[in-house]
This record gives sequence, C-alpha cells and structure tokens, in this order.
Amino acid sequence: MQDPVSFDVERNRLVIIDQTRLPGELKLLSLHSIEEMETAIRTLQVRGAPAIGVAAAIGLAVLARALGTDDGYSSKLHQYADRLRATRPTAVNLAWALERMLAGPHDPESLAREALAIWSEDIETCRKIGEHGGALLHDGDHVLTHCNAGRLATVRYGTALAPVYIAQEQGKRIHVYADETRPLLQGARLTAYELTEAGVPVTLLCDNMAAGLLSAGAIDAIFIGADRIARNGDTANKTGSLGLSIMARYYDVPFYVCAPFSTIDFSCAEGGEIPIEQRAPEEVTQTWYEERMAPQGIEVYNPAFDIVPNENIAAFVTERGVIPARDLSKQSSCVS
Amino acid sequence: MQDPVSFDVERNRLVIIDQTRLPGELKLLSLHSIEEMETAIRTLQVRGAPAIGVAAAIGLAVLARALGTDDGYSSKLHQYADRLRATRPTAVNLAWALERMLAGPHDPESLAREALAIWSEDIETCRKIGEHGGALLHDGDHVLTHCNAGRLATVRYGTALAPVYIAQEQGKRIHVYADETRPLLQGARLTAYELTEAGVPVTLLCDNMAAGLLSAGAIDAIFIGADRIARNGDTANKTGSLGLSIMARYYDVPFYVCAPFSTIDFSCAEGGEIPIEQRAPEEVTQTWYEERMAPQGIEVYNPAFDIVPNENIAAFVTERGVIPARDLSKQSSCVS
Repeated sequence: MQDPVSFDVERNRLVIIDQTRLPGELKLLSLHSIEEMETAIRTLQVRGAPAIGVAAAIGLAVLARALGTDDGYSSKLHQYADRLRATRPTAVNLAWALERMLAGPHDPESLAREALAIWSEDIETCRKIGEHGGALLHDGDHVLTHCNAGRLATVRYGTALAPVYIAQEQGKRIHVYADETRPLLQGARLTAYELTEAGVPVTLLCDNMAAGLLSAGAIDAIFIGADRIARNGDTANKTGSLGLSIMARYYDVPFYVCAPFSTIDFSCAEGGEIPIEQRAPEEVTQTWYEERMAPQGIEVYNPAFDIVPNENIAAFVTERGVIPARDLSKQSSCVS
Repeated sequence: MQDPVSFDVERNRLVIIDQTRLPGELKLLSLHSIEEMETAIRTLQVRGAPAIGVAAAIGLAVLARALGTDDGYSSKLHQYADRLRATRPTAVNLAWALERMLAGPHDPESLAREALAIWSEDIETCRKIGEHGGALLHDGDHVLTHCNAGRLATVRYGTALAPVYIAQEQGKRIHVYADETRPLLQGARLTAYELTEAGVPVTLLCDNMAAGLLSAGAIDAIFIGADRIARNGDTANKTGSLGLSIMARYYDVPFYVCAPFSTIDFSCAEGGEIPIEQRAPEEVTQTWYEERMAPQGIEVYNPAFDIVPNENIAAFVTERGVIPARDLSKQSSCVS
C-alpha cells in the first residue's frame, strides 16, 4: 500500500492519501500551499496522531523551500508553523514535530532533511512498537481496537495495529475486532480497510457492542493508540477509549496503549490538563455523505477525544518497550 | 402527537407510525394482512418492546375479524399468532401479549376487546411508571438514556422517558442526553425527535461519548427500557445498555430500568437464558439510506441487544413502584 504520508522532494509536495475517500476510493493529494495543508489536517484528509505530526513536518519543509530567499523568511516560517500547530489541539505529535523542526537550523534544505528524518524515524518507531506489542500476542488471539491507529495513522505499521502486523509476520493468527468509531467511522472505513488489504481477519462492530463481546470472553487484549499521554499516564485518545477502558477493567481484559514515546507530554501532569477538541455537530447528525440522521437544530455533544485514567491501563507499548502503567511516572523525558 | 400504535376498529386496521421514516416524515401505515404485520415488526416500522406487544395484540384481533366465520378459524388464528411471535425473539412483550390474547375466548369480538384492553392498559402502566420514576428526579436534573424507550416505543408516555414527561408535567426542568444508538439510530431519529416535539431539552451524543459525560459529572441518573428481565434481574435491552451500566457503576451514577411488570420473565432464571437477536450486517455497513460505510464483504458483529447484570442496576421502575434490584427475586409473578 502507498504510504499515507510522504515527501515528494523533487516536486516539493506533501503527498497524502485522502482518508475521507476511503474505503471507496484510494486517492492521493499533492499539497504545497499552507491553506491546502491546514484544510487537509482539519478535515481529516490526513489524520492519526503520528501521521499529522509527520505531515506537519513535511509541510513546513515544503513551505520553507517554496519561500526560498523570500524577504521575511524567518517570520513567515514561524507563522506557517503556528498555523499548522493550530489545526488540531489534542494530539501532541503535531506540536512536537513542529518544535523539533524549529529546534535546528532553519534553512530550507536542513528543514527538508529533518522532515525526512522524522518520516523515517516514524517507520522505525512503529516497527519497534509492533515488535514489543507483538510479543504480548499469542497465536489465535482476538484483539479489540478502537478508531484507526493502524498504518493509515502513521507512515507504516501503525501504533495499536503494529503488534498485529508483526505478530502476523511471525506466523501468529490474530483476529481483530474493530469498533466502527462514531462519528467519523475511522474503524469501519479505515481499520477494516487496511486490515482487509493486509489479509488480517477483521470483524466490524458498533462501538456500543464491545461490552457484549467482552462479556462473552471473546477478547484477549485491547490495543488502542494515543493522541497525548500525561506524565501520570492518563491518556487522551479517540472518544470511546475511556468507556472501553472501564469495560476492560470490569472484565479483567488487558488494555494496552500503543504510542511513540514522544506522545508522552511531560509538561502535562494529568489528563485534566489535556485540551479536548470539540468538533462540529454535523459529524453526528449527518452521515459521511451528508444525509441527515437527526432532527434539524438538535443540540449535539461531540468531543473528538476522551481521557483514559492511568488506573485502567495495563501498560504502554512504546518503541522503548512495554512500560507497566504504574511505572510511567518513573520514566525520564530524555531521549535515551 | 398521534399514538404510534392504535386500532382502527371501524376499518379493522392496525395503524402505526412508520418509525423508519422519522424524523424526516410522520407517515401512518394501516395494516390488515399478516404479511404486512410481520414486515412492520421485523423491519422496525413499529418497534419498542411494549409497542410491538400492543401491535401484535391488535394485529391478531384484526386478522381474527377478517377471518370471520372462515373454516379452520382456530387453526389459522394459532398460525397467525405463531407467525407474529416469530418476528422478533428478544422482547418478551410480544409473546406475553399473544399468550394473553389466546388465554381468553377466541371469537373475533372478544379478541378485539382484549386487544383494546391491552392497548389502554399500556397507557395506564406507562403513566404509573412515569409517576414512580418521576419521583426519583429533581428540578434541574440531567438524565442519560439509550435507544428509544419513549412514547414511540409504547402507546403513550414511554417507559424510560415516562419519568421525564411526568417530571416535566410537575414543573421540574429535566435535560435529557440521548445516545444516538447505533446501528439504527433510534436515539438520534426517535428520542431526539419526540423529546423536541414535547419541548424537553435534549442533547444528542454518539454512544461512545457517554463515558466522557459521566466522567465530567454531567449526569444525575440513567434511565433505560427493557426487552426482557430475567427472574434474577438480569436485563436484556438495546445493545449498548451493558456498557452503559458498567460505566454507571464505575462513576456511581444510578442506573434505572423502566418497564411494565410484564417484562419480567419468571420462566427465565438469568440473563444467559435470554435469546439475543442477531441482525443483518447491512445495518452496520450501510446508512439508513443505504449508502455504504465499510468495505464490501466485511464481517460484522451485530447483536440487537445485550444483557445488563442485576448487580449494575439500582432499581426497576414498574407500574407497581420502584423495586430495588436486590429485591427483584422476592417479587411474585402473580398480578396483584
């Protein structure tokens, strides 16, 4: 499969798979203006915490190279970074990637090198998450996941689905149950799509059916991604993750959060400090294809994320290994 | 509002609101053949456990009157009852109403009288559920509900929403949060519609957002209906009820099951004995208007109901009063 985010260095474009068209159509978009990039992130043409971090890094490099020797280069570069950072508030990867881009030399070619480094490190990080998480899976296991934290949410492998892909490489047969993930159906449209493409057996369910599956003893482990992890381990992820974690605790099924170590925001003490993006009511009241499903004018509660308390999490699966949730606060923010 | 189920005695028709057309269109259907009635129940043109019980009773009376002095009257009557009973397996009301119809004299006019009695008793029962449940609500309370157990699920008042309507009559201001209730969106299409029509403030949310609301302390009580209650209090209700009950327990929010006493199936010892209807994958993979939301051929888990264990239920609100869940097994099945 085409990488969902890449850097066309020759034509100086950010290239993404338009994820709003899946599963019906696999369409690539080549972006070069700041407006196109803002729209792509805001409307979820590119989505998934790691992928939007990589996209913002490549986007900034593309914009810098287009500026060339423009007057006010540095001021414009910072404006672009601010605009990209403002597109989505919850995922820490976006801010992290832009901060890393601006921490080094600002000339266009250095920025391009740094963006490519972020891109290739994402592949390596996700591969390692898969290796560590894959070791938690046994042949014949049934895994439940929520939203899409698969390859479409990263450059390759994914975060929550990386353990499944690596386990598959190792010859283990894993069956995935995918929450459809309302309102935008990332599970139905994206997770079901990419697992099917990869030959992994997958069963789709409505979010509210997960409790029934768990009560039947059908699930061995739950793997989700993360948009931001607070210092104490509280985790912001797609709305629905919190409820799932409570059910996992009730049924004593291990609940794993899979994410790059950079998803841990050491400046954030606990989940209550993580900003939660509220999105448009139409995402709930209309279908993806804009047909109405609820009365006109109805009030809607539509947070994009919720916070899973650390106490409901068994462990964090990162590229550095599997960190039991109770040990997270002992971790250092320094890159080892 | 027009009653969702009624008996047009003069034209000998079962009259229902076609609930598959709401909220876009308020359309009445007049049914007189067994095939029309089977289709109406199976495709959810009439739905809600009490409403399908009443509809089956009226339907059987309509069919009996149409038979008149037909040869083989009794055998045909029993065939009709069997066909109606088979349309949906989980809700006990359907079997209960048909059993009650066949317990008395079988002549057409006796059956018509019995159907009208079942119809009017449903109104009285729901009114009493509302009075008992309404006493649990305080001015300014915020109530969460799942699916539609409102007036559209009964003849009038509803079960889970009856307490809200009665509290409103008493001048209490109640705000309802309505789970949209995937896959068929009874919350978005029906609960949001009927509460808006009745002037009750309502906020719509996706099912997976309930945990976020509960964690924020935004909900004072949860009211749901029931399709069947086992002798030990385990309750079958719309898929998603189980997860909600686990969250209610986790956040210590009272979880009330509102249902006519006849919903208790004393022949059923516990939840594991209740048959769960599995419905078509297309309900999940396509929107109400038949646009696809998931890859072709994807496997789907689509139970219509799940089982809430008695331990997660605060009390049962019935026409006989509020019965603490721990006391349910002390109840007698005899009508007092």
